Amino acid sequence: MTYGMIATWRMAYDGVASMTEALKNGEGAGTALVEAIKKVEDYPFYKSVGYGGFPNEECILEMDAAYMDGDTFDIGAVAGIQDVKNPIAVAEALSHERFNSFLVGAGATKFAKQAGFDCRNMVTARAKRLWELRLEEIQKHNLSPYDGHDTVGAVALDLNKKMVAGTSSSGLFMKKSGRVGDSPLSGSGFYVDSEIGGATATGLGEDLMKGCLSYEIVRLMGTGMHPQAAADQVVYGFSDLLEKRKGKAGAFSLVCMNKNGEWGVATNVEFSFAVATEKEAAEIYLAYPAENKTTRIEVADKAWLDAYEARIKKPVD
Amino acid sequence: MTYGMIATWRMAYDGVASMTEALKNGEGAGTALVEAIKKVEDYPFYKSVGYGGFPNEECILEMDAAYMDGDTFDIGAVAGIQDVKNPIAVAEALSHERFNSFLVGAGATKFAKQAGFDCRNMVTARAKRLWELRLEEIQKHNLSPYDGHDTVGAVALDLNKKMVAGTSSSGLFMKKSGRVGDSPLSGSGFYVDSEIGGATATGLGEDLMKGCLSYEIVRLMGTGMHPQAAADQVVYGFSDLLEKRKGKAGAFSLVCMNKNGEWGVATNVEFSFAVATEKEAAEIYLAYPAENKTTRIEVADKAWLDAYEARIKKPVD
Repeated sequence: MTYGMIATWRMAYDGVASMTEALKNGEGAGTALVEAIKKVEDYPFYKSVGYGGFPNEECILEMDAAYMDGDTFDIGAVAGIQDVKNPIAVAEALSHERFNSFLVGAGATKFAKQAGFDCRNMVTARAKRLWELRLEEIQKHNLSPYDGHDTVGAVALDLNKKMVAGTSSSGLFMKKSGRVGDSPLSGSGFYVDSEIGGATATGLGEDLMKGCLSYEIVRLMGTGMHPQAAADQVVYGFSDLLEKRKGKAGAFSLVCMNKNGEWGVATNVEFSFAVATEKEAAEIYLAYPAENKTTRIEVADKAWLDAYEARIKKPVD
Repeated sequence: MTYGMIATWRMAYDGVASMTEALKNGEGAGTALVEAIKKVEDYPFYKSVGYGGFPNEECILEMDAAYMDGDTFDIGAVAGIQDVKNPIAVAEALSHERFNSFLVGAGATKFAKQAGFDCRNMVTARAKRLWELRLEEIQKHNLSPYDGHDTVGAVALDLNKKMVAGTSSSGLFMKKSGRVGDSPLSGSGFYVDSEIGGATATGLGEDLMKGCLSYEIVRLMGTGMHPQAAADQVVYGFSDLLEKRKGKAGAFSLVCMNKNGEWGVATNVEFSFAVATEKEAAEIYLAYPAENKTTRIEVADKAWLDAYEARIKKPVD
């Protein structure tokens, strides 16, 4: 009997740390994952998920989220949902529906309101000001507006051997109204099978959905491959394939965990993540692409963490 | 050098027949596929795709479509789009965008209008009347409202060895506002790699997305497996797995074609499809699940075709 949780980005650390304690005490994987992701959604300084997330080109925050049950393969998902405090909770609720379990746009928002989920205006004054500054910068320097797409994605394993996966994201900064990335898409943004393991992704959704990378990592783990080997093979293999076929590959980073609590990570950019298992205390790591299709992983040191904290809380004019 | 097209349901036949002729004369796979699917979208008596499709629970027609380029893996997709004559054409246009290539809800509709795509009210008098009759029936007999979800999905191969895949659907009859199935989801509703082959799905989207079945069929064809063997293994394997894990599996039917123009089909319900290749004239077939995880395939006879024609054109009160 073991337990654990792995999740994308430094922002997931607090939820991973507290909810792995809960898993140790018998909490179910579903509740642990939803609560961990809610912490990220609720924290105003994480600018790519939930409250305080970056709004779209019209300064409206549209959010995507998904939840998958690794026992039954049940999936709930929302895309382009607005004014809802915790999209991950809505996705979890939808996963219990046999029909209509993936809702988008106004229909998703209506469902959440009718089902009684907490609503709020999700655009903070800080996010609005950063949006305005970005708009000026784009106009002044003729930049591509699309930058920043840091989804929180997590995989959890509980003492009953149940595994779940989930994601939540406000998507690409300055995205067009209605734009959806990989986060709510099964196989691309997430996939989990309790008898094998789970994986989840962050990065350029438009490219991630070209490869079904989360599904492929889980499939390889199912052949007996260690999660790290599976992540390396899939991420670097597909990054190379996309460069060959298309000339370029966007950023992508995936984390995974198998049913034994072993984990892996691979990324074509600098990438932070958090993990805790029965054998390892909660920790924040940094991952980098290394030689020969491998990944270099190191503990995030105090200097990195301090710089991160200063960056996300930097005063805006 | 060969060419061919395979597509789900009898409704795809006219497009498959005429566009395979075009492929023979050098037409590109992309144009051939889009034109074939547009024929289905435009025909008012096909009640699950485009004009005349069944509206959602609010009597509004919300449509999903996707297009994938097997050379570059570029994907364009829309979900919950309204008032647009040809969602497949919008999806194809979006596939050329590096960012914002999957749009949902009001944002998708706005993009299509701004980009100059033809708009019309897609709810026909016949569809509205059938919707009303269905509503009465559901109330009278306490039926589940969710019935009918026949996506047109197609895979095309051209003389330049380019392959593409695409889908278009009005989704589950009486669906909730904003509901999305597998049709616009990469790996679930469709997948294609010009160096291997392509696959596409129809059936209960909520269950199809649990297995990433289109991706898995393409992957197996990539190991050298014949399309028919790949389809059988994936469809019956996952149908069994879902019954084991969840207690039941919804209807699903997949068709596929490899880069040599060889094709396959598997289904857990009676299912019609259309195919034409360099070696085989355009034909409508029926497929059924058979013994030992195989598929029985037969040419649709005149009696079946006549009954189909009578059924879709049956007068409504």
